[in-house]
Amino acid sequence: MINAASLKRIRVVLARPSHPGNIGAVARAMKTMGLAELALVAPRSFPHPDATTRASGAADVLGAARVHGTLASALEGCVLAVATSSRRRELRHETLTVRDAAARIAAQASAHQVAIVFGNETTGLTSEEAGQCQLWAHIPANPEYASLNLAAAVQVFCYELRTAVGDTAPSAAPEFEPARLEQVEQLYRQFEKTMVNAGFLDPGNPKRLLPRLRRFLARAQLENEEVNILRGFLKAVDKLRP
Amino acid sequence: MINAASLKRIRVVLARPSHPGNIGAVARAMKTMGLAELALVAPRSFPHPDATTRASGAADVLGAARVHGTLASALEGCVLAVATSSRRRELRHETLTVRDAAARIAAQASAHQVAIVFGNETTGLTSEEAGQCQLWAHIPANPEYASLNLAAAVQVFCYELRTAVGDTAPSAAPEFEPARLEQVEQLYRQFEKTMVNAGFLDPGNPKRLLPRLRRFLARAQLENEEVNILRGFLKAVDKLRP
Repeated sequence: MINAASLKRIRVVLARPSHPGNIGAVARAMKTMGLAELALVAPRSFPHPDATTRASGAADVLGAARVHGTLASALEGCVLAVATSSRRRELRHETLTVRDAAARIAAQASAHQVAIVFGNETTGLTSEEAGQCQLWAHIPANPEYASLNLAAAVQVFCYELRTAVGDTAPSAAPEFEPARLEQVEQLYRQFEKTMVNAGFLDPGNPKRLLPRLRRFLARAQLENEEVNILRGFLKAVDKLRP
Repeated sequence: MINAASLKRIRVVLARPSHPGNIGAVARAMKTMGLAELALVAPRSFPHPDATTRASGAADVLGAARVHGTLASALEGCVLAVATSSRRRELRHETLTVRDAAARIAAQASAHQVAIVFGNETTGLTSEEAGQCQLWAHIPANPEYASLNLAAAVQVFCYELRTAVGDTAPSAAPEFEPARLEQVEQLYRQFEKTMVNAGFLDPGNPKRLLPRLRRFLARAQLENEEVNILRGFLKAVDKLRP
């Protein structure tokens, strides 16, 4: 049985799409697999007649798409954001295949809002965009030509998600509450501040420390209470400052 | 390892495609998955600039496409032809899922020429066309809107074929050195000590804090350098103590 409610909890985020036709084709790809929530970050041109044409019977999904100024805003309310690429090395992280990632996403989407993020058609995701995600996934492709069309990549992801959501028995209620992304972001900022306060981080010469910290916090997939513990500890450290 | 030769033995046949843009997008979808042989049965308009544009980097696949007057001619030399649809009932046969069909196709393609046949964008395959095939396959889709774009459907089939023909490429060697368990244990001890020093943890009444910390550090699967960063930070904090 397909869990239609889980699919509706998966948000497709397009970061800086150039071609409005692709936005419409993405809406269509989503709807054929039962996804409905589309978020656009700084689209070059939207709304646009090309988007409407290519959406075909998915005018409802396209019409409900929300436009955001920043990726952080498009990710609000999500507990997991997955960066995607057809070029595995582009993401500079260890990446899952789309199939393995779909299983992880489906498990979270049984109870929580999740996002999958697709980059610009030509340039893909920037490292800053990818850094705001917790999982990295790629579509295994021909190494000599791995450039899937944006909507085609979305189609493959949504197809795997529909398959994964159908495979998973509705999972037992999770024991712990995952942290929302904005909480993790606040924790990261506080970590940075406290590291500077403690004289551990030279803000003029941070080297690779901050990206490493961000990467580590992303991978840990923190829970609510863990964020609270760590923030409480950092607050206590700040008070020590002579 | 991907068996590139098997993928080259799989012919994609488009029966009476209406939109030349779709033909180009199909060529691109094929090439991203390592397929190369495209056959067109009575295309309405081909060659066409829209096909060339949408083919993007797959101009070679598009340029090598052969145009046929009949489906029978396009199937010549094949030992197996698979009829496809996103609408299961359209084919009026018992159908396999695309995943199961891909496994059957991959088995044949290790030694023989095989064809997958896609129908017209609006009308799909006629029963006469479907009747010339030996297997029927569908992409499981949203029953309320199962109309995948032609090139999107080809992308999903080719993706499943690439997966079926070989396990995905061995994942890249991890760029970073994972921490040894004893290093994580030392980090945990130091965290505990610093939390006590900072007045954040009452050693007489630790509550659930330490098990949560341990659980979080275990789940994070820390790397060598991350352990060093965190231990360096904790050391700096210890020095702050008034």
